Amino acid sequence: MDFSSKLLEQAVDEMSQLPGIGKRTALRLVLHLLKQPESQTEQLAAALKKLRSDIKLCRNCFNISDTELCEICANPNRMSEIVCVVEDIRDVMAIENTGQYRGQYHVLGGKISPMDGIGPSQLSIKPLIEKVKAGKVEEIIFALSSTLEGDTTNFYIFRQLEVTPIKTSTIARGISVGDELEYADEVTLGRSITNRVPFESSMKS
Amino acid sequence: MDFSSKLLEQAVDEMSQLPGIGKRTALRLVLHLLKQPESQTEQLAAALKKLRSDIKLCRNCFNISDTELCEICANPNRMSEIVCVVEDIRDVMAIENTGQYRGQYHVLGGKISPMDGIGPSQLSIKPLIEKVKAGKVEEIIFALSSTLEGDTTNFYIFRQLEVTPIKTSTIARGISVGDELEYADEVTLGRSITNRVPFESSMKS
Repeated sequence: MDFSSKLLEQAVDEMSQLPGIGKRTALRLVLHLLKQPESQTEQLAAALKKLRSDIKLCRNCFNISDTELCEICANPNRMSEIVCVVEDIRDVMAIENTGQYRGQYHVLGGKISPMDGIGPSQLSIKPLIEKVKAGKVEEIIFALSSTLEGDTTNFYIFRQLEVTPIKTSTIARGISVGDELEYADEVTLGRSITNRVPFESSMKS
Repeated sequence: MDFSSKLLEQAVDEMSQLPGIGKRTALRLVLHLLKQPESQTEQLAAALKKLRSDIKLCRNCFNISDTELCEICANPNRMSEIVCVVEDIRDVMAIENTGQYRGQYHVLGGKISPMDGIGPSQLSIKPLIEKVKAGKVEEIIFALSSTLEGDTTNFYIFRQLEVTPIKTSTIARGISVGDELEYADEVTLGRSITNRVPFESSMKS
């Protein structure tokens, strides 16, 4: 694209570095900002800068937090002996929204993905192992997405924990509530049959 | 959405003010920035702020420009007696990309739209009328989108110019090159028949 302004070009270039934002969308967003009061752009810029420089990770679960210990870890009513392993804060938010989980989390910050150059050392796996070895945890629930990378990560952690007597589980895979069987993929349907649950317990939630 | 961090919430709130960016997408973008080096966020913030504070409009055509007079208006090879009226810089870029136009532009900065509270006074219509009345322009080409707002704006300018002897035209509407007739809407197809062109001239481009 050929811009008449270097300033505009720079702003569009930076904006289009964001995932899923192409040059055209970036231009639309930037032109929108130009039509708004200057304060809006300043607030956006300030919020992004402040977030990036001041953000903290909870020292226990590595979730994004404004405090040393996040709200969930600091809550004495949450069971610290159950730890749900997730990829990032979005998964924490999704599980919290269900209102069904009263344990703690451990946020890995990603999945093992050699293709993207992400190895175990770039994720917060070591602190998780240490937490388990310190004897504070009774059950680990793996809640990573069931992709190649997710399964690899699950398995890597599982192997590291083999010597430690601890209960490990993964979240159930199956047909979504409300979905019709005929449209489900075979793998999911197969798993939901293999891992069928007693009828009485399915009535609870 | 319930965030564990006020900083994160603020950044997501600001980001989701952009058009077409919901809370979920905003969160994805912000989390992406958190994974990148801090310099990327700083460059984005700086580029946006600098654009918003330093941006100029060309004093002749009102296009976005880093200089007093934009490159097109400053170019002595462009015919200043032909002026193409467009909505914003994206239209200028689109027409420039065709390489078919050697005149100048006049960027209105929007369309008359009472629904959005945009009247003629908020657009750069007055300078256009003055430019025409000063006798510098021979032909005006209307290239606004053919919506209710676009047609209203065209007509408003046309009425203002009625007393001045000047040629006015609009860009041709018709079937896109490569499109099949059966899928075209009737209005477009009808216009392309009414405004048919001599066969020889259609061979040129």
